[in-house]
Amino acid sequence: MSAAAPLRALMFDVFGTCVDWRTSVARQAAALGRARGVEGVSWEAVADAWRARYQPQMQTVRSGAREWVDLDVLHREALDEVVDELGLADAFGPDDRDALTRAWHRLDPWPDTAPGLARLRERFVVAPCSNGHVALIVDLSRHAGLTWDAVLGAQTAGAYKPLPQAYLRNVALLGCEPAEVMMVAAHNDDLVAARACGLRTAFVARPTEHGPQQRTDLAPAGDWDAVARDLMELAELLGA
Amino acid sequence: MSAAAPLRALMFDVFGTCVDWRTSVARQAAALGRARGVEGVSWEAVADAWRARYQPQMQTVRSGAREWVDLDVLHREALDEVVDELGLADAFGPDDRDALTRAWHRLDPWPDTAPGLARLRERFVVAPCSNGHVALIVDLSRHAGLTWDAVLGAQTAGAYKPLPQAYLRNVALLGCEPAEVMMVAAHNDDLVAARACGLRTAFVARPTEHGPQQRTDLAPAGDWDAVARDLMELAELLGA
Repeated sequence: MSAAAPLRALMFDVFGTCVDWRTSVARQAAALGRARGVEGVSWEAVADAWRARYQPQMQTVRSGAREWVDLDVLHREALDEVVDELGLADAFGPDDRDALTRAWHRLDPWPDTAPGLARLRERFVVAPCSNGHVALIVDLSRHAGLTWDAVLGAQTAGAYKPLPQAYLRNVALLGCEPAEVMMVAAHNDDLVAARACGLRTAFVARPTEHGPQQRTDLAPAGDWDAVARDLMELAELLGA
Repeated sequence: MSAAAPLRALMFDVFGTCVDWRTSVARQAAALGRARGVEGVSWEAVADAWRARYQPQMQTVRSGAREWVDLDVLHREALDEVVDELGLADAFGPDDRDALTRAWHRLDPWPDTAPGLARLRERFVVAPCSNGHVALIVDLSRHAGLTWDAVLGAQTAGAYKPLPQAYLRNVALLGCEPAEVMMVAAHNDDLVAARACGLRTAFVARPTEHGPQQRTDLAPAGDWDAVARDLMELAELLGA
């Protein structure tokens, strides 16, 4: 802790940091594939191809080229491209694609997420600060057994991370100063942006978020205020 | 239940419906009064005089005459008038008034509120839909042991109840249609406004919200979809 202000709240990235989107999406896509008699597809590749469209899509909103739309809209549009790319367009019709889009509302947590959040919440205000919209995070949190003090994110800020407003507007909603809030993420770029806004930063590595071949975000790329293996260790470090 | 849509979420009024603001504020004002050597004051009268300014204040925001401000601002301004009116202006200086304004962040729940919400939350999404801002509701909920799926209200809607946007914007944040959401309140006028927006309605009487002489909202004034003595009975009625 470098800042003198007391730490009052923690805001969490969700996709990757709190939940394992890749295996959760792959499993649900595989179940649909089985139901439609699809064979020979890597469902992890489906998840990866889907997620690869995420940042470019959000960039069209961040840049102002497109009006605000939520992740259900972006996920559904991206899925059309993914099924074309991977030869699934005939197998997965529009209703299937609508249903599969909801897979992002049902992502499993990492094993430490629910107990770590519960422990941190005893001492600190905890809230997501996700690019997922409120309804998605509510569904996902009920599925994963995650309890928050408030559900914040891009939608409550009116801006997708890593735009500064995505952090600062949510800090303000918590009634805090930036230095009183710690951003917790498995992604160094999220922490770079949060620090630039004056927030404290905690890095929690999720080395299999992108599968066994993951090359990025395996280690902290900055002198973050805290670095922990998981949320239970983070709680320990923060005295929670 | 008149609507055919399944009930998915419950939104709750907070001041009066979930928490006993009058005795909580009176108790905290009395403690400050003791510390300042004040005698002969009815602290319930302080709470009542304070709360009496609430609707007229919000009306200045609802009407557009004043830009959005949160309840901390409104409560602090009203307290200046209350201490003048009740002869406490010399005893309670600016720092005392700032501190006492925070009493609204520490309101005790009715006995059934925490267990009732917990039971309802097993089956339904539960969220406040309060005129209190997010930081106030977060503090109050941690104080009172209330757990929500999301913290919604006037601030997330950008409009104070009973303006329609205060209900409809929060219904949209939950990803629901109005008929899928039930507004739960101890105030008939809140339910009139919610029903006009297409929400379902539940009335829970809080006959001592305004003290032993309460004359208003002792009974349902409309054919609300549910009427219950407390949140445990509401859970029973809704099959939760």
